[in-house]
Amino acid sequence: MRIYGDSISGNCLKVKWVADVLGVPYAWIEVDILKGESRTPRFLAMNPAGQVPVVVLDDGRVLSQSNAIILHLAEGSALIPRDAYERARMFEWMFWEQYSHEPYVAVARFQVRYMGKPVSELETRLVERGNAALQRLEDGLLGSAYLVGAAPSLADVALVAYTRLAPEGGFDLGRYPNVQAWVKRVEAALKIA
Amino acid sequence: MRIYGDSISGNCLKVKWVADVLGVPYAWIEVDILKGESRTPRFLAMNPAGQVPVVVLDDGRVLSQSNAIILHLAEGSALIPRDAYERARMFEWMFWEQYSHEPYVAVARFQVRYMGKPVSELETRLVERGNAALQRLEDGLLGSAYLVGAAPSLADVALVAYTRLAPEGGFDLGRYPNVQAWVKRVEAALKIA
Repeated sequence: MRIYGDSISGNCLKVKWVADVLGVPYAWIEVDILKGESRTPRFLAMNPAGQVPVVVLDDGRVLSQSNAIILHLAEGSALIPRDAYERARMFEWMFWEQYSHEPYVAVARFQVRYMGKPVSELETRLVERGNAALQRLEDGLLGSAYLVGAAPSLADVALVAYTRLAPEGGFDLGRYPNVQAWVKRVEAALKIA
Repeated sequence: MRIYGDSISGNCLKVKWVADVLGVPYAWIEVDILKGESRTPRFLAMNPAGQVPVVVLDDGRVLSQSNAIILHLAEGSALIPRDAYERARMFEWMFWEQYSHEPYVAVARFQVRYMGKPVSELETRLVERGNAALQRLEDGLLGSAYLVGAAPSLADVALVAYTRLAPEGGFDLGRYPNVQAWVKRVEAALKIA
């Protein structure tokens, strides 16, 4: 398998972590999004959406969307709960991540870290919704070691990716102690600390 | 099962259609988002994210996120491809829908139809990205009756929900003939025309 990804992207790292933890062999091909390498004609032929990550499976078939890729790689593994309701809750977190977390937490971090915008100049909406997402996670982790059930699942992989980088976007994880402890726990479980 | 949903929301209708087509019995409880009914303390106790749809399963457990709910309802049905790669492609479309389609196509439609904003005053970014999403669908449907494989899947359910309402946001589906024909085909398959 070939993984086309940018190492600065949490979405891309999700795929790397799952492949690593499950022992799936791969070649990593670095795609520099800041240099527009995900918008070249060759890249767009592979993924018309112009987004990383993309994987090319051993049979040559292509797959994109980080969460779809990790679901495919982790099929049948312990990262996907066997209980139907727990699996549904895992999906709930994963769709919520792409809709209500990534567009704020990851975008703020991108603007600060890679576009050089001062934290004080971030759009209020971005900061408010990012904090709302972190608070939602904080509440979801109350009394729980992981987001779903008693073991790490793809919900943790998907949510930790940008949550651990939230301070780079000016978010103070000290306000969210459950989240802070969970980040360390998931990093240890995935061996990415 | 109880479905808490607003009939004006494509996300909520996805759940209704899947329940209907699979013969899953349910009670529909209308939640008027324009009146703030998804932000009351009682509703937030059920879904802290303050979003519809929410379902309360027969055992009292709660599930939110439209795509997570339809995955749960459709488990084992023909709406989820049995082939692992086709299933992965279905997920790819479903995550793409929430990240790259709904935030533009559905938001434009909401602003025009329910906030009374003239189409000419929509943010340029919203219109451009909405059209980019529709073009991506158009390309994805080239030579295909459905988004994944030869039969309707949850990818079609998820994407048709707001695509069929795109004209209410000022998008001209006449520019996307594959999409236009596919909308009719999926509406017929789901018996929602």
